[in-house]
Amino acid sequence: MKDVKILLSEDEMPRHWYNIQADMPNKPLPPLHPGTKQPVGPQDLAPLFPMELIKQEVSQDPWIEIPDEVRDIYRQWRPSPLFRARRLEKLLDTPAKIYYKYEGVSPSGSHKTNTAVAQAYYNKQEGVKRITTETGAGQWGTALSIACQMFGIECEVYMVRISFEQKPYRKALMNAFGAKVFSSPTNLTNAGRHILATDPNTAGSLGIAISEAIEMAVQDEHTKYALGSVLNHVLMHQTIIGQECLLQLEKAGDYPDIVIAPLGGGSNFAGMAFPFLRHNLVDGKQTRCIAVEPASCPKLTQGEFRYDFGDSAGYTPLLPMYTLGHNFRPAAIHAGGLRYHGASVLCSQLLKDGLIEANALQQLECFEAGIQFAKAEGIIPAPEANHAVAQAIREAKLCKESGESKTILFNLCGHGHLDLQAYNDYFDGKLQDHYLTEEELKGSLKELADYPPVA
Amino acid sequence: MKDVKILLSEDEMPRHWYNIQADMPNKPLPPLHPGTKQPVGPQDLAPLFPMELIKQEVSQDPWIEIPDEVRDIYRQWRPSPLFRARRLEKLLDTPAKIYYKYEGVSPSGSHKTNTAVAQAYYNKQEGVKRITTETGAGQWGTALSIACQMFGIECEVYMVRISFEQKPYRKALMNAFGAKVFSSPTNLTNAGRHILATDPNTAGSLGIAISEAIEMAVQDEHTKYALGSVLNHVLMHQTIIGQECLLQLEKAGDYPDIVIAPLGGGSNFAGMAFPFLRHNLVDGKQTRCIAVEPASCPKLTQGEFRYDFGDSAGYTPLLPMYTLGHNFRPAAIHAGGLRYHGASVLCSQLLKDGLIEANALQQLECFEAGIQFAKAEGIIPAPEANHAVAQAIREAKLCKESGESKTILFNLCGHGHLDLQAYNDYFDGKLQDHYLTEEELKGSLKELADYPPVA
Repeated sequence: MKDVKILLSEDEMPRHWYNIQADMPNKPLPPLHPGTKQPVGPQDLAPLFPMELIKQEVSQDPWIEIPDEVRDIYRQWRPSPLFRARRLEKLLDTPAKIYYKYEGVSPSGSHKTNTAVAQAYYNKQEGVKRITTETGAGQWGTALSIACQMFGIECEVYMVRISFEQKPYRKALMNAFGAKVFSSPTNLTNAGRHILATDPNTAGSLGIAISEAIEMAVQDEHTKYALGSVLNHVLMHQTIIGQECLLQLEKAGDYPDIVIAPLGGGSNFAGMAFPFLRHNLVDGKQTRCIAVEPASCPKLTQGEFRYDFGDSAGYTPLLPMYTLGHNFRPAAIHAGGLRYHGASVLCSQLLKDGLIEANALQQLECFEAGIQFAKAEGIIPAPEANHAVAQAIREAKLCKESGESKTILFNLCGHGHLDLQAYNDYFDGKLQDHYLTEEELKGSLKELADYPPVA
Repeated sequence: MKDVKILLSEDEMPRHWYNIQADMPNKPLPPLHPGTKQPVGPQDLAPLFPMELIKQEVSQDPWIEIPDEVRDIYRQWRPSPLFRARRLEKLLDTPAKIYYKYEGVSPSGSHKTNTAVAQAYYNKQEGVKRITTETGAGQWGTALSIACQMFGIECEVYMVRISFEQKPYRKALMNAFGAKVFSSPTNLTNAGRHILATDPNTAGSLGIAISEAIEMAVQDEHTKYALGSVLNHVLMHQTIIGQECLLQLEKAGDYPDIVIAPLGGGSNFAGMAFPFLRHNLVDGKQTRCIAVEPASCPKLTQGEFRYDFGDSAGYTPLLPMYTLGHNFRPAAIHAGGLRYHGASVLCSQLLKDGLIEANALQQLECFEAGIQFAKAEGIIPAPEANHAVAQAIREAKLCKESGESKTILFNLCGHGHLDLQAYNDYFDGKLQDHYLTEEELKGSLKELADYPPVA
């Protein structure tokens, strides 16, 4: 059982991010201003983001150089290891070869740090003193906390109240990394005060937390806002994952037939899949790229492709995407990072064009898969990552039936050390699958009738 | 800021454990049977341990080959990375070079997995079907859980009741790795039933949990017991840590002036320091090896060198060691792995002979150091590891004062992802330093008056 992990030296770390916009057969439709219904321009976004990130958002260059200062921080945990899951293969008695990329080695324990460091860097370059953001489950807030710390930027995290109370350990980690963490809604913002006045016992929501973070950012010229997924530049910063996999698989003398990653907003999937999609688009490779979403929040498999807001409160531009409607309320499954109503513009366009696949899985299958994986490989996955594990196991079992020795690669996007309550709930039989009714599915889409069509 | 981490390939992983008994100028005194006061023989230990481990316990060979099956599992996370703490150096503005070995990459999140895998392997070789053990904070129980899982051995963990209740996430992790976890005392053993009858609300103790694990092991010929520190073979299994450091520092063109590790039972410190001590003993090197203990449990700096039991209940042989007395009750500091009354026989003899140093630190200094480290390096250390971090920072500050560019190496023995409550308590001002009174220090030693002298 040799070569269970395939490592790269620091010198082999990719020097560019890959921008898939350059190679897409159909370019993404523009975001629209919700008032004018016209495409938004750079100045519309300038109060929130540094100009370099706004440029990256619309760039058509295939390769964007990773600044040395960002690579210097990446060196702490990158290149991340690629593992051949030999024990899992044996357990499944499959002829398939299963590889997994492990992003849990990063300071935040997930892939989120890749874009957090890049965003903090560009903010620092443009003199930003403070960055605000929201966080739900806490992975993104943790990642931005340590990234800001490393560049000497203040970080304020608005954490959804119910998560703040249920997950005190995420707060401790963000505090240790130097961030201020607030239970949202707060009394610090108009948005927060308005909610507290009308519903003092609110559990909070990502939509409210986003509103608070944005409101704090626009008040101060030295403060900007950061988002952990969905936007084009965020997805691009994650492509270092798939690029490293290409190099690592080359060392192993292999190339994937199937690439799998979870999809919440889209950056996890994009980071793993886009570099392989490039070879599909440019070199005629035929790797199947599968985005896995929770069955309780199935925008890719049961949502509609249309213009919708990126946040619940309706502060963002209108984005052309697969969506369940921005007021869709996903069930409280234990995979907070995947409980988002829409898919990023880039992933949505690629799905519409038939260039990627999507599948929706129930949470009990995902937890069962995660535990099978933990026993075989010794790593307890984050609940989000379990969606990729479960899909990989499905594909490996199909290989056993057909006798094919396919090569399967998936993104183990994070460890589950801060999600062990979810595993306790699973062991105690407290978790359930969720089946949506037609009414639930279509309800929040009706509100979007007046928005511009995507055609 | 290049080469922040120094990696080895799987082929460079050491092929032997180092047995310091071969090179010690004064061999350790023998363990004594508490009844006969005569040295214990292999047959006294046979009901508890497989014969190969009993042989390792008394071996005088300097090198013991690591079996291929053990190395195959080590490959999952070994060789572990060595980091140059360049950001911490910069923060401290010190001319010292600081390196840290990171054992948090292992499946249990700590160095404990190194011996757990070895012990599970030798038990499997001798047909053992089930292993019992105790755990306090949970690192050792977690490590043995995954090791047993990988060799198809049942694992039963007796977890001190107060930890079982305060740390439900450790239980979830052990369950995910396939172990049965019991809140100790249980109704399953005579020892447990006796305690429950007299003190139903007991918080439990490591001593009780050991008694239960031993009682379950001796009842069944296919069941053995495993210990996570203190014993000679356990310390030896950890020496792969220091050996890897030797190779990694050679790649960096460096050699340490100071080596630092926490000391609870001794395996953490031994694993890091013994390979460097070998060069002190054999090649005339002069590396200072510093064991760091908590000021609230100061066996090395304030205990006495004498025969004492290894456990509270008095079931083990009498061991010649630095001890505070086996009934010493350390304060409830947040570093459960260091709350042990004695130091391993090997570490004790080396300290007595002046070949290693010891220092005791208060917990507030340790947590402050851990947070300073987390902000600089992006890793939140286990509270046990903070003791090494704090000592390293002390030495680096001395270098700043003297202008010397010493090379400091310490063992970052585990991450703190499952210890974040301790950090929350620190941030909330709930943690205190502990100063022992002379009475507390000497009280539990008085009971040992009748035991044989060490002279």
